[in-house]
Amino acid sequence: MSVQSGESRHRVVVIGSGFGGLFSTQALKNADVDVTLIGRTTHHLFQPLLYQVATGILSVGDIAPATRMVLRKQKNARVLLGEVETIDLENKTVTSNLLERRTVTPFDSLIVAAGAGQSYFGNDHFAEFAPGMKTIDDALELRGRILGAFEQAELSDDPDERTRLLTFVVVGAGPTGVELAGQIAELSRRTLRDAFRHIDSTEARVVLLDGAPDVLPVYGGKLSRKTRQTLERLGVQIQLNAMVTDVDADGLTVKEKDGTERRIESQCKVWSAGVAASPLGKQLAEQSGAEIDRAGRVEVLPDLTLPGYPNVFVIGDMMSLDKLPGLAQVAMQGGKYAAKQVIASVEGQDPAQRPPFRYFDKGSMATISRFSAVAKVGKLEITGFLGWIAWLFVHLLYLVGFSSKVSTLLSWAQAFFSTGRNQMAATEQQVFARIALERVRAAEAEQPQPQPQREVG
Amino acid sequence: MSVQSGESRHRVVVIGSGFGGLFSTQALKNADVDVTLIGRTTHHLFQPLLYQVATGILSVGDIAPATRMVLRKQKNARVLLGEVETIDLENKTVTSNLLERRTVTPFDSLIVAAGAGQSYFGNDHFAEFAPGMKTIDDALELRGRILGAFEQAELSDDPDERTRLLTFVVVGAGPTGVELAGQIAELSRRTLRDAFRHIDSTEARVVLLDGAPDVLPVYGGKLSRKTRQTLERLGVQIQLNAMVTDVDADGLTVKEKDGTERRIESQCKVWSAGVAASPLGKQLAEQSGAEIDRAGRVEVLPDLTLPGYPNVFVIGDMMSLDKLPGLAQVAMQGGKYAAKQVIASVEGQDPAQRPPFRYFDKGSMATISRFSAVAKVGKLEITGFLGWIAWLFVHLLYLVGFSSKVSTLLSWAQAFFSTGRNQMAATEQQVFARIALERVRAAEAEQPQPQPQREVG
Repeated sequence: MSVQSGESRHRVVVIGSGFGGLFSTQALKNADVDVTLIGRTTHHLFQPLLYQVATGILSVGDIAPATRMVLRKQKNARVLLGEVETIDLENKTVTSNLLERRTVTPFDSLIVAAGAGQSYFGNDHFAEFAPGMKTIDDALELRGRILGAFEQAELSDDPDERTRLLTFVVVGAGPTGVELAGQIAELSRRTLRDAFRHIDSTEARVVLLDGAPDVLPVYGGKLSRKTRQTLERLGVQIQLNAMVTDVDADGLTVKEKDGTERRIESQCKVWSAGVAASPLGKQLAEQSGAEIDRAGRVEVLPDLTLPGYPNVFVIGDMMSLDKLPGLAQVAMQGGKYAAKQVIASVEGQDPAQRPPFRYFDKGSMATISRFSAVAKVGKLEITGFLGWIAWLFVHLLYLVGFSSKVSTLLSWAQAFFSTGRNQMAATEQQVFARIALERVRAAEAEQPQPQPQREVG
Repeated sequence: MSVQSGESRHRVVVIGSGFGGLFSTQALKNADVDVTLIGRTTHHLFQPLLYQVATGILSVGDIAPATRMVLRKQKNARVLLGEVETIDLENKTVTSNLLERRTVTPFDSLIVAAGAGQSYFGNDHFAEFAPGMKTIDDALELRGRILGAFEQAELSDDPDERTRLLTFVVVGAGPTGVELAGQIAELSRRTLRDAFRHIDSTEARVVLLDGAPDVLPVYGGKLSRKTRQTLERLGVQIQLNAMVTDVDADGLTVKEKDGTERRIESQCKVWSAGVAASPLGKQLAEQSGAEIDRAGRVEVLPDLTLPGYPNVFVIGDMMSLDKLPGLAQVAMQGGKYAAKQVIASVEGQDPAQRPPFRYFDKGSMATISRFSAVAKVGKLEITGFLGWIAWLFVHLLYLVGFSSKVSTLLSWAQAFFSTGRNQMAATEQQVFARIALERVRAAEAEQPQPQPQREVG
């Protein structure tokens, strides 16, 4: 087999094509190393805007450039598509798999940035009725679920069924949940306002549920309050201190703080309540003796490496250090830091001399609706229109590719200043396959029900 | 059940949300009628640009606006999602079905514009290995197949397998086939040029097959010759007078004019060789006594109606009249004509007084590559850059929605002037589900083969 790189160069393997993986690879651009980025998807994903794909504002390409295209001019980097199955720290190899085609890639340095998936806190059967919001497939499926629910409601004459179809429940009031609930509300109140004849889309009920006592709890105080007010003005019903104890095809069961249980009838549910780090974390912990926390994240040393393996970095949503949150900025900065340490080691620096990783908090933010966002930069708290402008600017800045920036800006102009949205098509597969599946599962769960027939005059 | 419209208004039912259905509905905007458009998909589809979604240039939203959004301000129109199962000409009703939820819609006038699907000329089992190019799902699936083939080739060390993975076969040298072959060639030669490290994407083989003796046979002469030259310069291998006799997971069998058969090994095949009108045509023919032609199209009277049913119009790809081709313009003009006759009848005109439908040929065109198209307007034949400018202008003009026009122009600027493409992400489902399915089928078809394992570095 031909190998393009010289045999003697330092080999860096990066696992993951998210913020951590992409930024570390790019930071190695001018280094005298060979980089192999192993990705499970063909694309890098700008996850903070995923909710806008789900709600018809942005196209897939706007937030998901092909990793291969982003890196094609970086001569020392190559992209391997496949899911990593095993990391062997002793023998310094990574085995990845693309549909039973296994590839073993040796490394000198390893940067593990495989991210996190949705967590259902042990209730994995919730997933089929309340999908998460972690991948492009999730977002497109959710788009089909949302639009499909409105389409079905338009055809229904049963008031109870129509209420169930027009009730949208978002579980988890973190940034993704808040943004999603806000956008579903805007979709029903503004975008779809005149689109139906039989139902009034503005009557759709959007419920935002969380077990915590506040929305955006990490922000706290004024920002949480402001977020709550804005969401409520949009028509979102916020239900806090409410734990989800069961989810099925037709709704969910919620347990209040006082122990009473109640039921919400809803066809379209989304789960954004928790994350679980990639299962690769467990492998790394077992081999290195590092601890993993409840979310499956690996406790790393101050230089983001595993104990005893100064050549193996764990970054982003997979790492546990100083209670840093699972934010894009943490992953990006971790990626750049790891790349810098790899370069220093290649140049002969002793790993013991490494400065510890320092996270520089550039602030965090969430949009609630058009023209309104909350942002926290250090001690500065910005809300409303100014916060929204800050949000716009920062998100555009970090989107990969000039064309994506322009196209996204254009889509935003349309979505926020007119009542249109550019990506309102759900494919047949998304709408029909999804609805069909829901029905089959509902039928399996209970007795088959007679189908309504009606005549339109 | 509440009915929004007054009971006394003339009820028009339109079947289909393609060019014919959408244009007839819009032409009824100011008429004193109630229009119900029954669509099988949530979106109108600008089918002539579908190949650009498949090859990563345009997003779904650019060419597929939600029908409901397009018509939301047309107060006399409503959109019903569902597949039409039966048309009852005697009782004047249409029964549509959205996942076993049946709706019966009565009509006074009916415009049937349900279009055409892919035809495999009786070999329907070809479909699973060589999907057609008729829907958004088809285009996204093809995108996943194309990019997935390159990804697999990058991982393969078996030269035969790699050749098979890098051979793309387009069956059918009509406009869609020509444009698709041209774009796959540009994708491999320009866009992906530096994206792989193990394979050379520019070595990909693109084969355009047709049983006819020429490409774009409807154009003929100089334009066909010019198209052929341009395609060959792009590296497309054109194989004419070649009938496909079998298709399987790993390739296809081709029969030459002299009767000899040969095999082409290819993982990624597309079928754009034939169309079959909607099966609703057969129902209409049986009930009215109209003839249907070999492609399932209904032979209509000069006013596009069925014999004995002056209130039932059949338009677009479903109608057979004066050998008119299955072009967007024929459907649009048919839709406008039918709407006009409906309005005249409502106003009291005797259907016997109708002027016959006259198709005004505005010309037809196909792009072959960037900066090069062929166009025929009356006797005028335009090729090369000028043809391409004409193509650009006309296609932008007919795209629905200002935002789609701007966004499409932007994507074209990127695709044609730079080497990037904005929509190169294939979702996990598209790439992996597709490849997995192919493998399962291949395994079913023959003995399971050992999987290659290899070591990199």
